[in-house]
Amino acid sequence: MSFEQVGKAFVDHYYRVFDSDRSQLATLYRDASMLSFEGKHFQGVANIMKHLMEGLSFQTVVHHVGSVDCQPSTSSGIVILVTGNIVADGNQDQPLNFSQIFHLANGGGNQWFVTNDIFRLVF
Amino acid sequence: MSFEQVGKAFVDHYYRVFDSDRSQLATLYRDASMLSFEGKHFQGVANIMKHLMEGLSFQTVVHHVGSVDCQPSTSSGIVILVTGNIVADGNQDQPLNFSQIFHLANGGGNQWFVTNDIFRLVF
Repeated sequence: MSFEQVGKAFVDHYYRVFDSDRSQLATLYRDASMLSFEGKHFQGVANIMKHLMEGLSFQTVVHHVGSVDCQPSTSSGIVILVTGNIVADGNQDQPLNFSQIFHLANGGGNQWFVTNDIFRLVF
Repeated sequence: MSFEQVGKAFVDHYYRVFDSDRSQLATLYRDASMLSFEGKHFQGVANIMKHLMEGLSFQTVVHHVGSVDCQPSTSSGIVILVTGNIVADGNQDQPLNFSQIFHLANGGGNQWFVTNDIFRLVF
């Protein structure tokens, strides 16, 4: 698969898991992984998952992806910019625009994991 | 300087140059640099600069930066997500939200250059 196919498949998978059972996102991070979420910083699977499970301001969420742009990075990884909107707790009337970076690294074979993850709501 | 100081100083510099004389941005790219601009892809200083000088839909622009988040990358680079808005051709009544990734690499000493650049307007 090309870097673009990998990146787009990753994004599809990531938000499908996030929106259905985000505890399963743990498999996509490693101990060196970093997450910046609205300016708060977390490193490592345990800290990242604790924030994603307990630190968000909503219970349920649906991500609607608008654009996905992928580029290969110098470390044989993939840099991805996602823009879109989220509907939190079924609040269809108030979708919130977001932007998110993923920087993926290859863990062998078809296994990719997140080294950098930065999320921002866009107002 | 910390990665965060480098990243924020780079972003300040980049948009200051972009808004005043964007031909000078050429020094911030290399031949391996990649730019994705609203889904169009360019590689190398010449192609990137041609797009930035001739391919944009406006003549003048002012970038207003809202957020800058930086993380170190596995290649000893810096991954940056910028969100903000632009005012194009003095159209103050219609600022446009944007998001942009920079992935910087160190070219020796305090010299940093762009390896990945992805720009999207956010609606």
